[in-house]
Amino acid sequence: VSRLKHWGWGLEERQPAAADVRAAAALIAARTGVAVEEVEQPVALEEVSVRAPRIAAPAALESVLTAATYERARHSLGKSYCDVVRGMRGQFDDAPDLVARPGDERELEAVLEWCAGERIAVVPYGGGTSVVGGVTPEVGGDYAGVVSLDTGLLSGVRELDAVSRAARIGAGSLGPALERELGAQGMTLRFYPQSFEFSTLGGWVATRAGGHFATLRTHIDDLVESVRAITPAGAWESRRLPASGAGPSPDRLLLGSEGTLGVITEAWVRIRPRPTRRASRAVAFDDFLRAAECVRELAQSGLEPSNCRLLDAGEAALTGAGDDSQAKLIVGFESAEIDVEPALEQALAICAAHGGEPEPERGADGAAETWRGAFLDAPYLRDVLVMAGLLVETFESAVTWDRFAALHAAVGSAVETALAETGVAGGRVHCRLTHVYPDGAAPYFTVVAPAARGEEVAQWSHVKRAASDALVEAGGTITHHHAVGRDHVAWYERQRPELFARLLRAGRAELDPAQIMNPGVLGL
Amino acid sequence: VSRLKHWGWGLEERQPAAADVRAAAALIAARTGVAVEEVEQPVALEEVSVRAPRIAAPAALESVLTAATYERARHSLGKSYCDVVRGMRGQFDDAPDLVARPGDERELEAVLEWCAGERIAVVPYGGGTSVVGGVTPEVGGDYAGVVSLDTGLLSGVRELDAVSRAARIGAGSLGPALERELGAQGMTLRFYPQSFEFSTLGGWVATRAGGHFATLRTHIDDLVESVRAITPAGAWESRRLPASGAGPSPDRLLLGSEGTLGVITEAWVRIRPRPTRRASRAVAFDDFLRAAECVRELAQSGLEPSNCRLLDAGEAALTGAGDDSQAKLIVGFESAEIDVEPALEQALAICAAHGGEPEPERGADGAAETWRGAFLDAPYLRDVLVMAGLLVETFESAVTWDRFAALHAAVGSAVETALAETGVAGGRVHCRLTHVYPDGAAPYFTVVAPAARGEEVAQWSHVKRAASDALVEAGGTITHHHAVGRDHVAWYERQRPELFARLLRAGRAELDPAQIMNPGVLGL
Repeated sequence: VSRLKHWGWGLEERQPAAADVRAAAALIAARTGVAVEEVEQPVALEEVSVRAPRIAAPAALESVLTAATYERARHSLGKSYCDVVRGMRGQFDDAPDLVARPGDERELEAVLEWCAGERIAVVPYGGGTSVVGGVTPEVGGDYAGVVSLDTGLLSGVRELDAVSRAARIGAGSLGPALERELGAQGMTLRFYPQSFEFSTLGGWVATRAGGHFATLRTHIDDLVESVRAITPAGAWESRRLPASGAGPSPDRLLLGSEGTLGVITEAWVRIRPRPTRRASRAVAFDDFLRAAECVRELAQSGLEPSNCRLLDAGEAALTGAGDDSQAKLIVGFESAEIDVEPALEQALAICAAHGGEPEPERGADGAAETWRGAFLDAPYLRDVLVMAGLLVETFESAVTWDRFAALHAAVGSAVETALAETGVAGGRVHCRLTHVYPDGAAPYFTVVAPAARGEEVAQWSHVKRAASDALVEAGGTITHHHAVGRDHVAWYERQRPELFARLLRAGRAELDPAQIMNPGVLGL
Repeated sequence: VSRLKHWGWGLEERQPAAADVRAAAALIAARTGVAVEEVEQPVALEEVSVRAPRIAAPAALESVLTAATYERARHSLGKSYCDVVRGMRGQFDDAPDLVARPGDERELEAVLEWCAGERIAVVPYGGGTSVVGGVTPEVGGDYAGVVSLDTGLLSGVRELDAVSRAARIGAGSLGPALERELGAQGMTLRFYPQSFEFSTLGGWVATRAGGHFATLRTHIDDLVESVRAITPAGAWESRRLPASGAGPSPDRLLLGSEGTLGVITEAWVRIRPRPTRRASRAVAFDDFLRAAECVRELAQSGLEPSNCRLLDAGEAALTGAGDDSQAKLIVGFESAEIDVEPALEQALAICAAHGGEPEPERGADGAAETWRGAFLDAPYLRDVLVMAGLLVETFESAVTWDRFAALHAAVGSAVETALAETGVAGGRVHCRLTHVYPDGAAPYFTVVAPAARGEEVAQWSHVKRAASDALVEAGGTITHHHAVGRDHVAWYERQRPELFARLLRAGRAELDPAQIMNPGVLGL
């Protein structure tokens, strides 16, 4: 049976062989100049121990709850760099006491009711791919215990409205499964976060995930037609509507609630036919900031490309898209309905005016598809690099264009300084733009450095703190699409209106008087 | 000095002469077949009396508050049909005790503090163009009095960021004034609700108003970068960001809050250069529902036209756009940056495939501009028709495409039956689509009928109730962009998740413990 590794990314059967690790690490070393050290082997599942559960399942919920070590270990951590390091070392200090896998809403309600009565914290868990501590059962307070609530069984495409192009989908559905089901009817949600393979629709909604489209419908927010959630006070379901002006949007309050208001169980989402026409090109620029000016013009042009990803030279080299001498822009359009060549032509004209040189065409599935393959494989690669002693982590933001260049400079310099302070040499920080808007851009930073073996968590925490301070001071958001979780709370609190936090706390107390839902997340 | 009429629409100096009223009414009679009766003259301001104020301004606020009859009368009513009838008859039963016009946030805070201390209800008032009772000081409860808080002095473009294409604008700015200021720097917000001439940015944000664009950025929601509001608990201000995934959006909670959380004082909004390229055509269809199918394909095509307004034959005749035999679609594209002809060509090809026949071109400013002029003049015309004894009112919704035809039929039939039940013959109901989405459309209904003189409010309430029941039963929203106010509460409560209402009530009690902010609106 294929099942997920208890640490890091992917299925057990894709656990890399030592030779593969060395080969991959050598490749990255060649591309980045960061030296590779001895390969460390992960602590095997059989050697993992977790503390004894502090709570026991009541008889009525025995079939829904488990205390198995494998389940508790793999529900202990998300997928941030520190999570991967901890998992590799067999450190599952915050393991949940029990893991719940409700098969339907009735079982889910029963779990919440039991937990509220016993003052047990509940951490909703979709695919567990949080990189911000969103699923870590580190709840603080005086809870009797913690249950990780896995929505995996609440899955499947339940209804499809081909006329309105919408589908009702269980929140526990993983990306590939929901795409397979939609694809059987010629449709697609076309939402590809980097976690696509192992993340869920419910998780995307709860965390305002960012997807496939570089412009317009960048977040899952824009694809959601209605949401249903189970809260400790009962069910919350909005009406399916293409748009509405009736009061503040209830969906926009669940979007980003990160499990603090309840467990999202299903959503109606906007789907579309698979694109049949694509036009995409890679364009080279000598200078990243000049290329960013070009991207600004593209973002303000109304062309609304599906893809508009700008990689700086280092990022291009790291991902094999270039040779470390030029920034690369991948700009593309796609449609199932209309001709997309005219739009690409206009986009390339804008690029040319900014000194961008289009690379030779690579066919309909060219650069964009190559990029996407590497993009979705990156989390696998990271496990390997961690084993080889590399620190590899990413963080991201969004900022208005007037502040972009200053933010970019401040963050790069903060990371370099912080890396040096941790005593390592040869670290690198790269930047790409993942999503763009008329009024700003979402820069995404990748850091690669030699890890301080055994001190990785302290090392990365130091760098992360410096980077986050720089982001928020420069006017950015602490996250464009990675969510807040537990890791970003300190910076989130600096950008969030305090009265909004007070309103949310009061509102949450109304729905969850025992305050069991994902305590600690969002600083609530 | 030009100042607003104390009743109905527009400036005192545009009060129509009796001969103009007869001419306009005769034109509508010819277009609709609805007979015109004797012209009624409005009760003059000098003859208007309002009840004595129950409260007096404290010394420190004397310059901010007024009890003048003119101010109290014109802050008594919005601009719904019933408001216009009441105003014409000099019925200002719910006049606020005082009208506040704070000159800055300090004065505004002082007003809220005084009101909270004295348990005086506060009704925020932007341009006063609500058609849903949103500004009517009918607050219920045991308040000591009611203050209408006019934001008119909190106006002006305060900052303009040409790089990010955004501007910080005072909430009390009227449409024409803010466009004039932005235009001086070559920019435009390009947001044209029908109330444009006399409505404010703050009102648009508070009510989630619908604007110029038929697709994509249809509501002010999509143009808002950040919002600042003064609540009874202090200031609420979000960070300027092009997008964010950090927790639920604070702006999306103020958007649609209709004054229940605080008074919006300014917002950063996304602006753009004035379009220099336009391509627009009118297309005739023999059948409205077949035309709606065409509009669905356009909305799902990714072409995203700026204008995509479909008028049924009756609506086309009423507005002078046609002869009552064919439905008319106005489809158009505009840009300051890119060529728009290719998009129009593709749109017209889709129309042709659905049997749509393009009308001859009318130049760059053709059909769309003609339509816009008539659109913005409609509120003036309505005053005239009310004087001539016609019932003229509109209501609107949004619904997914799978339910559109059924909703359209149900609403039409409900209105016709209800009109007949009020004992009038010859009433008509027309429909247009104002905004369209891949998953649905926003139908907008116009009702024209002989008014039951002296019984207009009861007559329209009967029809409105039947229409609203039909809308909500057919799966629509009670409003796509007219807001909830006091008039839509009963239907809003049928579509809103009850737990969301509980959360909002609890959250609001945290910011406004005395519950002074616009009580009654949104059913809070």
